[in-house]
Formats: sequence, C-alpha cells, structure tokens
Amino acid sequence: MLGLMQDRPLTLTHVFHRAEQYFGHKTIVTATANGETSTTIAEWAARVRRLATVLDTLEVSADGRVGTFCWNTARHLELYLAAPCTGRVLHTLNIRLFPEQLVYIADHAQDEVVFVDRSLLPLFWPLVDQLESVRHVIVIDDGADAEVPSDPRVHDYEELLAAATPFEGRFPVLDENRAAAMCYTSGTTGNPKGVVYSHRSAVLHSLITLTTDAMALSERDVVLPIVPMFHANAWGLPYGCLLAGSSMVMPGPNMTPQAIVSLLERHRVSVTGGVPTIWMGVLPLLPEHDLSALRTILCGGSAVPRALSEAYREAIGVPMLQAWGMTETSPIATVSSPRSHHAEWTEDQRADYRARQGVPVPLVDVRLVDPDTGELQPWDDQATGEVQAAGPWIAAEYYRGEGGGAQFTEDGWLRTGDVASGDRYGSVRLVDRTKDLIKSGGEWIGSVELENEIMAHPKVAEAAVIAIPHEKWVERPLACVVVKEGENVTAEEILEFLAPRVAKWWLPDAVEFIDEVPKTSVGKFSKKTLREKFASPRVS
Amino acid sequence: MLGLMQDRPLTLTHVFHRAEQYFGHKTIVTATANGETSTTIAEWAARVRRLATVLDTLEVSADGRVGTFCWNTARHLELYLAAPCTGRVLHTLNIRLFPEQLVYIADHAQDEVVFVDRSLLPLFWPLVDQLESVRHVIVIDDGADAEVPSDPRVHDYEELLAAATPFEGRFPVLDENRAAAMCYTSGTTGNPKGVVYSHRSAVLHSLITLTTDAMALSERDVVLPIVPMFHANAWGLPYGCLLAGSSMVMPGPNMTPQAIVSLLERHRVSVTGGVPTIWMGVLPLLPEHDLSALRTILCGGSAVPRALSEAYREAIGVPMLQAWGMTETSPIATVSSPRSHHAEWTEDQRADYRARQGVPVPLVDVRLVDPDTGELQPWDDQATGEVQAAGPWIAAEYYRGEGGGAQFTEDGWLRTGDVASGDRYGSVRLVDRTKDLIKSGGEWIGSVELENEIMAHPKVAEAAVIAIPHEKWVERPLACVVVKEGENVTAEEILEFLAPRVAKWWLPDAVEFIDEVPKTSVGKFSKKTLREKFASPRVS
Repeated sequence: MLGLMQDRPLTLTHVFHRAEQYFGHKTIVTATANGETSTTIAEWAARVRRLATVLDTLEVSADGRVGTFCWNTARHLELYLAAPCTGRVLHTLNIRLFPEQLVYIADHAQDEVVFVDRSLLPLFWPLVDQLESVRHVIVIDDGADAEVPSDPRVHDYEELLAAATPFEGRFPVLDENRAAAMCYTSGTTGNPKGVVYSHRSAVLHSLITLTTDAMALSERDVVLPIVPMFHANAWGLPYGCLLAGSSMVMPGPNMTPQAIVSLLERHRVSVTGGVPTIWMGVLPLLPEHDLSALRTILCGGSAVPRALSEAYREAIGVPMLQAWGMTETSPIATVSSPRSHHAEWTEDQRADYRARQGVPVPLVDVRLVDPDTGELQPWDDQATGEVQAAGPWIAAEYYRGEGGGAQFTEDGWLRTGDVASGDRYGSVRLVDRTKDLIKSGGEWIGSVELENEIMAHPKVAEAAVIAIPHEKWVERPLACVVVKEGENVTAEEILEFLAPRVAKWWLPDAVEFIDEVPKTSVGKFSKKTLREKFASPRVS
Repeated sequence: MLGLMQDRPLTLTHVFHRAEQYFGHKTIVTATANGETSTTIAEWAARVRRLATVLDTLEVSADGRVGTFCWNTARHLELYLAAPCTGRVLHTLNIRLFPEQLVYIADHAQDEVVFVDRSLLPLFWPLVDQLESVRHVIVIDDGADAEVPSDPRVHDYEELLAAATPFEGRFPVLDENRAAAMCYTSGTTGNPKGVVYSHRSAVLHSLITLTTDAMALSERDVVLPIVPMFHANAWGLPYGCLLAGSSMVMPGPNMTPQAIVSLLERHRVSVTGGVPTIWMGVLPLLPEHDLSALRTILCGGSAVPRALSEAYREAIGVPMLQAWGMTETSPIATVSSPRSHHAEWTEDQRADYRARQGVPVPLVDVRLVDPDTGELQPWDDQATGEVQAAGPWIAAEYYRGEGGGAQFTEDGWLRTGDVASGDRYGSVRLVDRTKDLIKSGGEWIGSVELENEIMAHPKVAEAAVIAIPHEKWVERPLACVVVKEGENVTAEEILEFLAPRVAKWWLPDAVEFIDEVPKTSVGKFSKKTLREKFASPRVS
C-alpha cells in the first residue's frame, strides 16, 4: 500500500523560487578588490533568470557541465542556481589545484563552458588550449586588472546578462535524482575523482543546515561562508541560506584575517564557517573587534584544535562548532552540537566534547569497522574502526566509475578513510586517517590524537605526526612541530609535555621543527610530503 | 545525467534506529491516572522490537492497518514506530468521534487490529461487533478500572509483549513511498476522508520540525505534545522528537489545565503544542507556576487569538508560535516565526504578526486563488484567495479515492478551503473558510477577521461570526459571543468596540450571547451548529 502524498520532487528549483518569492528583500553583500557590492535577493534572482537563458544562448547541452573558477561572490551564487535549475550540472573547479589536475578534471567532467573571475584569469587562461571540451570562457569582471584575452571563446559575463531575455515563470519540474552539481576530490594519490550531487541530495543536505542541532540557519541569520564555494558547495551554506532566507556576506578574493574580521564586525555576521587555519589567523585580531552578533563559528576540514576553540570561547564567548565530512558526504555528516547531558558538565569537559567530530546528523548513518577484521566496533568510546557512512547525500560511486572500487563497501557504504571511536551518545572522535595510522609493534597509534595533544602546548602553532620506518617496531611516530611566532620550545619540552598525556609507547621517537605544515590544495595536512622528507629509518 | 548519491530511502526505520542508538538515555514520561511512568528510549525501543513481532503473531497482514484508540502515551508511541517499521500502516482513531463515524472509519480503513487504552474501552467496546475487519482488540492497561470484556478477540498488551521475541537487527529497507500512517479528516459534512501518509512524507515533515524557523526541535528540548496523537500525528511532534532526540512528556488522559501546567513546570518543558482552547484554560494558572524552561508554545488548529498570545507574553514572556495546517498537510504548512525585519518593530506590531498564520515552511508551496475567477492573487496583503498548497507531505488524494474530486485542483494542488491574503515576506493571514465567508451586497466579509477583532475585547472569551440570510444584502454577519466568567458585556459595547476597528458595513447586524462556541470532534468551531440555531432571516 502506497502513501497518497503529492509526488513533489526535491529539487533546487524549489529553493530558487522560495528565495525569490519570500526573501526578495534580503541582501547578499560581496567584498571586492575595491570595496563591497550589495544586491537584494530579488535583484539576484532576476539575474539568475537572465543567466538561465544565457546558458541556452551559449548552447550548453541539456545536462552540460557548467564550470566555475570563482571566489565566493553573489555572482558565483547566480551560477549555483542557474545551472541546476535549467537541468545543467554546476561544476565548481578548485582554484588552488595544480594546472595538470585542473586540466584533467575539466576534461574528465567534459565542461562545456567555464565562468572565471577576472582576477583568476592568469591562473586559468594558460590552460585553456588544453581543455578540449570547453567552448566558452565567460569572464566575470571582479575589478581586477588582469588582461582579458582577445579570443573568440571569451565573453563578458555582464554583457551576456544584459543581452539576455529573462526566463519567465517557474523552472520546469526535474527528476530529483538528476545531477545538480559536481565536485572533484583532490586526493594526495591518484587522479582526482568526481562526486556528483543530485537535486535530492542538495535539497536534503540544505534542510539539515537549517536544523537546530546542525547549523540552525534561520531567516534572522547573517552568514559569511569563508569556506570556498568550490569545496563541497561551501559546506552547503549557500543553498542553506537561500532555503532559510538568511542574509549572506561573501568574502570575495581577500581572505586575509583582517578582511575577514572586518566583514564579521561590520555586517554583524551571526554564522560563519571555515577551516582551522583561517581561525588561527583571525584569533589575534579578536580583541579589537566587536563580534557580538556572532553565534556560530562552524569549523571543519581538519580536526579542530581544542586550544583554538577554547581561545575563541575565552575571547568572544563563542567556541568552534566542529563538523566533519568530506566532498563525498556533501559534506555535513556529523556536528558536535551541545547536548542535554552537558548541562552538569564543567567547561573543561565541554571543551573536550567540542574537540570531537560530533553526532551524525539526521538521515546519515555511521558505523565503525575494524580495518583488519571488517567487524563492526562497539560505540564504547574505546574501540576504534574505520568510519563508514551511508545516507541520501553520500556518494555511491565516482563519476564515470573511476577510482571507486576500494572506497565503497559491497553493501554500498562509503569508506571515509577516517578512523574513529564513538560514544554511547553517538559522538564520533577521529583518531586518524587509515592511511596515516601508525602501527608500532602490532598496536595502532593515532596520529591525529597525538597531534591534538601536541597542539595543546601553548607554544605550538601546528603539529603533524607521521609514521617513520623502524627496524624493531616496524613503525614509530615522528612529530613535526611548528612553533608559534615569537616563541621558543625544545624537543624535550614537547616530550615532557606529552608524557602525562599519552601512553609511554605513543611518545614520538623524534621531534622535528618545521616552518609550516605542508598543505594539500584544499588546505589539509599533506603528510605525504612530510613522510618523503623524514622517511629515513631510525634506530632508537 | 543522474547524481551519483546513495539510494537511501527516507523511512521511519531510520528514525527508530537513530533514536535507539544515540538517544537511548533520553526519557519519555507519561502521566497516568495514578501518577507518572518514566521510560528511557532504550527501554522503549526494546518494547518496539517486541511489538514488531507481536504484529506478526496477530497475523496482521504485510500492509495491514493497525488501529489505535489511545491517549498520548509512551505506549502509543511504541505503536507509532512498530506499525510502520514493519511495513504496516498506523491508523490513529480519533477518540472524540461519534460512534457511527468511528465504525465507518475503521471499516473503510479495514483495520485488522485495534489497540485501545483501557480507560477508553467503554467508548470503544460497544462498537466492536459492528467492525467487520477487526480481528483483535488489544487492551493497553492504563490503570483505569474499566471492565475488560472476556472475549476471544481481546488481548492484554503487556502479556503479548512479555511473550514476544524481540525483533533483532535493523528493520528491512522499505520503499519510501510506502504508506506509513493514516488519519481521517472529520469534516462537518459528508463522510470522513482518509489521508494516507508515506514514510517519505513523515520523514520530511519530521525534518521540518527540527528547523530553526519551524519548531526548532533539539536534543536539548523537553517536549509536551498536548495535541492528541490521533490529530495528524500530534502535529509531527512525536516523530520529530525521536529524530532530534528530545525528551518527551506525554500527558495521558488528564487534560485539565491544572494537570497540564503541572507537567510543564515539573518536567521543565521547553516546547509544547496545543489548540487555543487548551491555552485559554491554562492562562489563569500561569502566575502560580514556574515555567521558565518554556521557550515555545506551538498553537494551531484554529486561529490563535492575538489577545491570548499577548496574555502569555505578558505573563511568562513567551507568546504563542502560531502554525497552520490540516490533516491533509501532515499538518505543518506555515509557521509564524519571527523574522529579521521585525527587529525594529514595536511589540504591538510583532503581536499583529504573530496573529498571522505565518510563512510556508521549506518544501511547501502556497498560492492564493480567487474562488470566483480561479486567478492567482498577488501577495500584497490586500487581495484574498483560497489557500492552495503543494509539497511532499501534502495529500494528493483521499484513501480509496473517495470524496476527493473537489478538494484537489487539476494540477495536483490541495484546496484547503481557507481564504487568506499573503504579504511580500510570505506571511499568510487567514480571513476565513471558503464556506464561512459572508458575502454581503456582493462584497466578502471575513468571519475569522471579525472574530479576532471581537475576541480582542477584554471581556470576551470566544466569538464566532456566521452569515445569516438577509433580504437586501443576501448575507449579513451575526456575532456569537462567549463572555468571560465573571464579566458582563452588552451587544452595544461590543459594537462600539468594533466600530473603529473594521469597515462600517462589516459591523454585525446582531450580537448573540452564548455559553460556549460549539466545537467539532477535533475542537474547531462548529459554525454549522450556530447557523442552524440562528438561521432565521432578519431585516434591518
């Protein structure tokens, strides 16, 4: 027996029409090289309607991939809706990728057009002759003075929009399983792999950003997404804001701490999100700014150092809200929101909790699987296992079936490559990446756990722990430490600090001081680089 | 091109397993005739697992209808999950229906079993021989002393559970469009009509109850659903609470104001929901109770009097949160949550806003259609039209196709029978029911608007306005007024009070004082009864 409910697909066209009808008076501010622009949702929506017909004029095929090579701006958000609402597939290209990766990705996705911020043309244009499928490059003039090539493939965004007839009425009804957007993962090994989001996954994920125990986006919020719109749809914030009716502040190209803190203050931002590195940079500037409107600092991308979160709580009363996920999970899978049983807890216990990755959000299932035996691990906060995830916004496979086999289980769950324990309240605590786990004398050592402990040292800015080969124990941990500016610390001090905090056999065999932890193109620790540097076996 | 996301259906089995795994430590309190019982979600879930196999033992067919005739209790909530998680269809019977309606409904739905609270047996048992499809009556002993008939069809709930083997592992994967629950509308004319909710609609609706601008249910909430679980699934609160992990307080059979206020205070309830009549009863008791934990009083079912909401705001700082919907809309369609543009408003303006029905929640579309011409009305807060609704938790048709034709448009929208205007912020303001509209000299008069103005009089408890036939104007309004206990007011005073508030030709031709406004079985004003009483034509 079937339910007798209306067959209304979950599509981004609903998000667009809702924002246009009810939130036309709300604003999107974009920081530019020369100042700021502000647009109402009504004006923005009118431009989306023009852009929709521009895609027809450019003869983008019915499900053609629409590449973007852009900062976070209101115009990028126009593409976010115009592409999927007309049945096309938004493909956000990561501006920080190496040229050969970009060429591979644009080719693999068969991007037909690419929209490029003028300030990013110097990065993009040199590749254009290698992009076989790209027929048009549309330059979005963001005030930069980069030269615009005189080439028949090049168009000016504003000229196209000005010449376009706006699409009228409601966008056509689409299959909710139709592709809406895609994003490539930038693994440290192998070719990037394409994750293809559907309308259904995008809408459900957006709903989650509105739920109280996730980001709780509301019409009353002012949201600054610092996380780039080419990283898993900026963690779902842009679509979430449109669904909720939140005001938006887009940071544009200037990602300096000073620029960010100034936007937070001037626009009385209530919700923001970015990786820990961003917040480390902003931290020293907090005392000079009034951030009293801020209620949520979403943080993820890599484990949030407890000390960083505490520093924010002490400075402005707002600790980090940690979330965990990845491109393959749309990305929100867990959020470390406060729970009722914390009411009796000390601030210290709460800080420990906030350093965890959090509880799976509704509709996401998480299980912990022993990487050796494949057995399900209990949620006793002791046993660790690989985090496997299932849910309607979690990837089932990669685009064109490539590179997938090992990353999906036979019963269809995603193998995230993260290793974690979980407590009886559903709170996940990552200890490592499967590939970064250190196996010393047959026992696992969690490199992320060790890093967190080292980063708790007041003079340490960052730390990465890697496995180095060892004759007797097979592998032993080595700590790579970045000292805070103006501070001095010795290897002995680090080890002394660690001694009461971890098991004796977890103590790193060596501490190396480095200037910075090398990062991947998406800002994650590149341990591969460190392993190459410090890989020579040691005897102790 | 399709998205490459996991094909994970939206089913209530997810809600169950999530609650069981992450929220096992949370509690459900149930008020009984003799005191209170308290159960953890873990204990409750273990009972759901037993109940699942009880349904097999009773040979309920694979998609058989499982009737319930119960108060709001933790046990009723066991049925809420056990029936749909095993593929059956929960059918909540309204205990306040007339016997002939109950017989019609149970027969029409083909209920195979009915679970009955012992205290309700005297209402239910006399009908049992007329219920052709009902093979088993399971008595849930709630401590009442009603006699339990000695009859082979009768079983004791606790005995069945004690004898059952718990269902193990995860419930099977179901089609998300499968029927999960049904509820009959109790129209004032014609036979009741069955609304059949799907798993998909129930899950999506539950998600909405977690969003900030709807009920914002959180793990940190303690929720008291006063609205009965046989009214459109208690407005979605029980499933929402399980999905969010909120604690629950179930009021059981004692719905006196004293019992309710005492539950609110003792359990530090943060969210509650019920019809206006309930809150009118509780109002005088507020000063003697500490309701400082209360953050949201959800109110709906009929228009929320502005004065009532303001009285709560003045007494405890919490006005009503008005929501609008109906059985056919699962029921949440609009919520009158505060908006960013109210920041500059006076308290008086906010109170006006709160007296509106609110903004459509995400995934619900609302349009206003002129009942005469069928044309779409602008959202200018002036033009009124019939409210038509579309969305994934809105009915497409009635069970067995009956009584439907007129209530669904050709393009698949629900005709709600409510007449409203809407403003440019998406906020809907009901002015009447299509069938209650008063057409005087060719112009519409909104009976609900008039009622609201009359109820703003400090000495008026309730008011209902009906059309009476008129020789010259065809119809004219007549006001039926219930005076507050201990107060005195004349018809002249009422009309004087109204004069500056409504157009002159809206002033009722007569004011009749009545002891109470007659109500339908679901607590709505029964204007039909009033029309029968006061229908004689008048000349003025």
